[in-house]
Amino acid sequence: MTRVAFLGLGAIGAPMAKHLAQPPFELAVWNRTAAKARTFAFSAGTGVRVAKSPADAARGAEFVVLCLPTSQDVDTLLDGAEGLLAGIVRGSMVIDCTSGDPATSRTISARLAAIGVGYIDAPVSGGTAGAEKGTLTVMCGGDEALFERAMPVMRAFGEKIVLCGPTGSGDAVKAVNNALLAVHLWAAGEGLAALTKAGVSPALALDVINASSGGSRTTERLFPERVLSRAFPRTFRLALLDKDVGIAAGVARENKVPSPLLQLTSELFRAAHSMLGEEADHVEAVRVIEQWAGVEIK
Amino acid sequence: MTRVAFLGLGAIGAPMAKHLAQPPFELAVWNRTAAKARTFAFSAGTGVRVAKSPADAARGAEFVVLCLPTSQDVDTLLDGAEGLLAGIVRGSMVIDCTSGDPATSRTISARLAAIGVGYIDAPVSGGTAGAEKGTLTVMCGGDEALFERAMPVMRAFGEKIVLCGPTGSGDAVKAVNNALLAVHLWAAGEGLAALTKAGVSPALALDVINASSGGSRTTERLFPERVLSRAFPRTFRLALLDKDVGIAAGVARENKVPSPLLQLTSELFRAAHSMLGEEADHVEAVRVIEQWAGVEIK
Amino acid sequence: MTRVAFLGLGAIGAPMAKHLAQPPFELAVWNRTAAKARTFAFSAGTGVRVAKSPADAARGAEFVVLCLPTSQDVDTLLDGAEGLLAGIVRGSMVIDCTSGDPATSRTISARLAAIGVGYIDAPVSGGTAGAEKGTLTVMCGGDEALFERAMPVMRAFGEKIVLCGPTGSGDAVKAVNNALLAVHLWAAGEGLAALTKAGVSPALALDVINASSGGSRTTERLFPERVLSRAFPRTFRLALLDKDVGIAAGVARENKVPSPLLQLTSELFRAAHSMLGEEADHVEAVRVIEQWAGVEIK
Amino acid sequence: MTRVAFLGLGAIGAPMAKHLAQPPFELAVWNRTAAKARTFAFSAGTGVRVAKSPADAARGAEFVVLCLPTSQDVDTLLDGAEGLLAGIVRGSMVIDCTSGDPATSRTISARLAAIGVGYIDAPVSGGTAGAEKGTLTVMCGGDEALFERAMPVMRAFGEKIVLCGPTGSGDAVKAVNNALLAVHLWAAGEGLAALTKAGVSPALALDVINASSGGSRTTERLFPERVLSRAFPRTFRLALLDKDVGIAAGVARENKVPSPLLQLTSELFRAAHSMLGEEADHVEAVRVIEQWAGVEIK
Repeated sequence: MTRVAFLGLGAIGAPMAKHLAQPPFELAVWNRTAAKARTFAFSAGTGVRVAKSPADAARGAEFVVLCLPTSQDVDTLLDGAEGLLAGIVRGSMVIDCTSGDPATSRTISARLAAIGVGYIDAPVSGGTAGAEKGTLTVMCGGDEALFERAMPVMRAFGEKIVLCGPTGSGDAVKAVNNALLAVHLWAAGEGLAALTKAGVSPALALDVINASSGGSRTTERLFPERVLSRAFPRTFRLALLDKDVGIAAGVARENKVPSPLLQLTSELFRAAHSMLGEEADHVEAVRVIEQWAGVEIK
Repeated sequence: MTRVAFLGLGAIGAPMAKHLAQPPFELAVWNRTAAKARTFAFSAGTGVRVAKSPADAARGAEFVVLCLPTSQDVDTLLDGAEGLLAGIVRGSMVIDCTSGDPATSRTISARLAAIGVGYIDAPVSGGTAGAEKGTLTVMCGGDEALFERAMPVMRAFGEKIVLCGPTGSGDAVKAVNNALLAVHLWAAGEGLAALTKAGVSPALALDVINASSGGSRTTERLFPERVLSRAFPRTFRLALLDKDVGIAAGVARENKVPSPLLQLTSELFRAAHSMLGEEADHVEAVRVIEQWAGVEIK
Repeated sequence: MTRVAFLGLGAIGAPMAKHLAQPPFELAVWNRTAAKARTFAFSAGTGVRVAKSPADAARGAEFVVLCLPTSQDVDTLLDGAEGLLAGIVRGSMVIDCTSGDPATSRTISARLAAIGVGYIDAPVSGGTAGAEKGTLTVMCGGDEALFERAMPVMRAFGEKIVLCGPTGSGDAVKAVNNALLAVHLWAAGEGLAALTKAGVSPALALDVINASSGGSRTTERLFPERVLSRAFPRTFRLALLDKDVGIAAGVARENKVPSPLLQLTSELFRAAHSMLGEEADHVEAVRVIEQWAGVEIK
Repeated sequence: MTRVAFLGLGAIGAPMAKHLAQPPFELAVWNRTAAKARTFAFSAGTGVRVAKSPADAARGAEFVVLCLPTSQDVDTLLDGAEGLLAGIVRGSMVIDCTSGDPATSRTISARLAAIGVGYIDAPVSGGTAGAEKGTLTVMCGGDEALFERAMPVMRAFGEKIVLCGPTGSGDAVKAVNNALLAVHLWAAGEGLAALTKAGVSPALALDVINASSGGSRTTERLFPERVLSRAFPRTFRLALLDKDVGIAAGVARENKVPSPLLQLTSELFRAAHSMLGEEADHVEAVRVIEQWAGVEIK
């Protein structure tokens, strides 16, 4: 049996952890809101241990999987009498599925290395559906031997599992992917708002664009399903996409890449986040454009 | 037999016209460089008439198809002793497949209406391959009755043929589609330059992005085939994409849609156009980012 | 006596016209809201004729001075049975003090030239105070002989009177001046919001900046007097500054100058205009930044 | 006698240090290129000690003044057998006149506090002329008691000496000032390039703007003296202004202020720095716009 600790049972984390709640894995879980961990253990069936702290979860585990909102949350988890570092075992490793930032991940990796613990950043993509089906894409950064060692655990929830480069590379690729999503969302919002005001049906425009060179996952899926329908379901918070674009913009700056489009998109999402609040879905960023333009894209 | 005049035998126009060089169509062609028209007629076989002026081409035609670089080129064609207006027949109509700008198209439409000639803007998408196979997407703007009347002609070269709205709507949709292409190209260029400098293989990053939410036609096709390969084939001029983004940005301004991303993209392509010259391909815009960043995406 | 017609008795126009309400000038005035013209005539003393239409005002005048919100307003004034063109005298000239756009001014100039009437664009700067004191800066575009002919009239209200270049040049210089004001306002707003949140007193920061290389008319005057004081007096509408930045951005585009900063500033003011409405003062644009940032600069 | 160490004898540092080379100060100097320190000591007259390392300079000093290109240079100076920390005396203090970044300054301040050494950030403005005359503006961040203690030293080279707020505030104010300079420079460059292409004399346009609301230190001084004259003297490197705008943009991001203009300006200067190299003067950024636009502002 492979002993695994899973910390962070959110919308993505919980269905990921479920795949580890059965042999050959032996699972301990921890969540900041303890009730969520108990509910998870109850529904996951026998054999899931609810740990009372990060340290407690990590004790005896060969693998510690983290799935938290931000790298800062991971950082906060490490220290203190009941922090992760107090319980984690020399020779074990951390698989950090948080959509983190490369610089913080590198710092965390170095702190763990100093006490003989391995680390890879391993953010995922694919949404709750992918987490449930175990078909997530996992973007990893770090040492190749650690990546190989973590493979059996990641296969439980992932399908496309890729080593992108040195520590932080998984975070960087995830951030750039999400930044492109953000760029596509905002640019299509501007374009479709203009067409709608010009008397063109946005559904028809999307139909044409999706058959042409301007198409993207955003115009194929998000606009028809969520904007035109005025549904705007809340599946992925704008606050988190704002964070991700910010990380991608930071990767560009650190690498001295002049990047006006990414930086501007980052500011637009910062403004939208401020205007729409913490609970808004990422697609609702389009509402800011609609409000500015005085039109609904429908 | 339906008499058709085709003006503008460029890379897209020539293969489009070829579909009209056979029954039930009777074709007259004109091109600014007359040699091109003669070559076309020779290769298209018997029955194609090479007109000596726009007026000459239009004489007797029920449909005049235009496929020129810009609306300004169309405008220039109209006047003079041998201009289009001197030959075109009351009761006929113009199908303008130029990737034009809505305002100029509306002006041209009004001038034609005043002499009893119909007009629809009908820019196409699908490249030379689509033109050859007759599977272009055609985005139309104008009166519905004219659109229906033009349908048999457009079916010769188009597959998805859509009436987008009033005159200029086809131009607007085409411009927005191309502006999204431009945004996607530049944003992916920035992101991939940053990842490459951070030690991530861009091929691998594209593979992941194309399986995730940041994917687009651009990351699926243009980057793998043209950038990573360093091929940069010259299929669609940067100068023309610059023009198209400018048209889309203008549509947004005219409709009072605050559109920072489209406007910034327009300026970046204006700068790239100035830096790379008239002959560069649109994908070569990525070279500007590479030069600024001191890295090749490969 | 020099016969002058003055059309447009707004906040700037009325005090300008007052300088022409005495010998050697003989003044006729017209205003869209007729009551304003009557009030003006009453307070200006004997000898001011209140015209009942643009045509009526222009009849017999050697000089027609226009001071309207936009070039579109000028354009609207020209036509119709009682429009300016119906009354204006061959051999007279128009001095257009509207903050107009160069393209429309060129069109209007051409229409007037066709009927033997001269035209210079002559927008002014200096506010209501400058208008009252007769110390406005007047930026002119057009023919040098016309400029010289208009000089006695312009000297009545202007101090620095400059011929900037061909028709539209006055508009262009005015627009660029106002665009720089807009850029300075927004950039200082961003910087001071950041400093305020970082615990720095904005009054102190302004004091230092005004003694250093980052100072401008905006940091010297507008921020201390209107933002820090929270006074935000309504002296020049945001809607009009939005228009002016848009004109400057258009001048840059027409002249094929890549101009990312001017275009972005134009979009930010478009968004601010949409968010704050028609009556907001131009300095209130800073409120948008404050709202986004969750801080007051005070 | 007050014992002072001065590290960093560059274009600004050397004339600053000269004011400390006489009673009541007793000066030790150090420079990375030792020859510069020897030349300085020779020209400054008797009594200046040339230290052989940062540690050696700091030994016995009550005040250590730093004037280096970047905070990273300061950071590099601290450690090692002959680093600043190895020589600096408990109870002394550091006056850091580097145009640094607030975050690094806070880290350095904390490291020094841990060994009983005070720290204020105290970047200066006023150029070589101000340094020579002893009329610099000094923007300080840190503890008020330390600020007061440092005052006699700062008075030797400064005129306007201001405590802006907590540690890092001096850096932040300096960075924002320089960012405004950068914004003003680029925006005026765009506007004047457009006017020049439109047929307006830029000298005349500047004359009008400087009498109007769009004027700034940049349009009053830099453009007439350095751009129109085509002189472009090399007084302050573009590379350093790029760094400063980047710091200001970072202050805005850290404080969650949506700041599209500052971020875009930062990217434009990053691109200009890449295009023009390490030795270009900051005003030469205008050459990028000129090159893009195909015009010289003269």
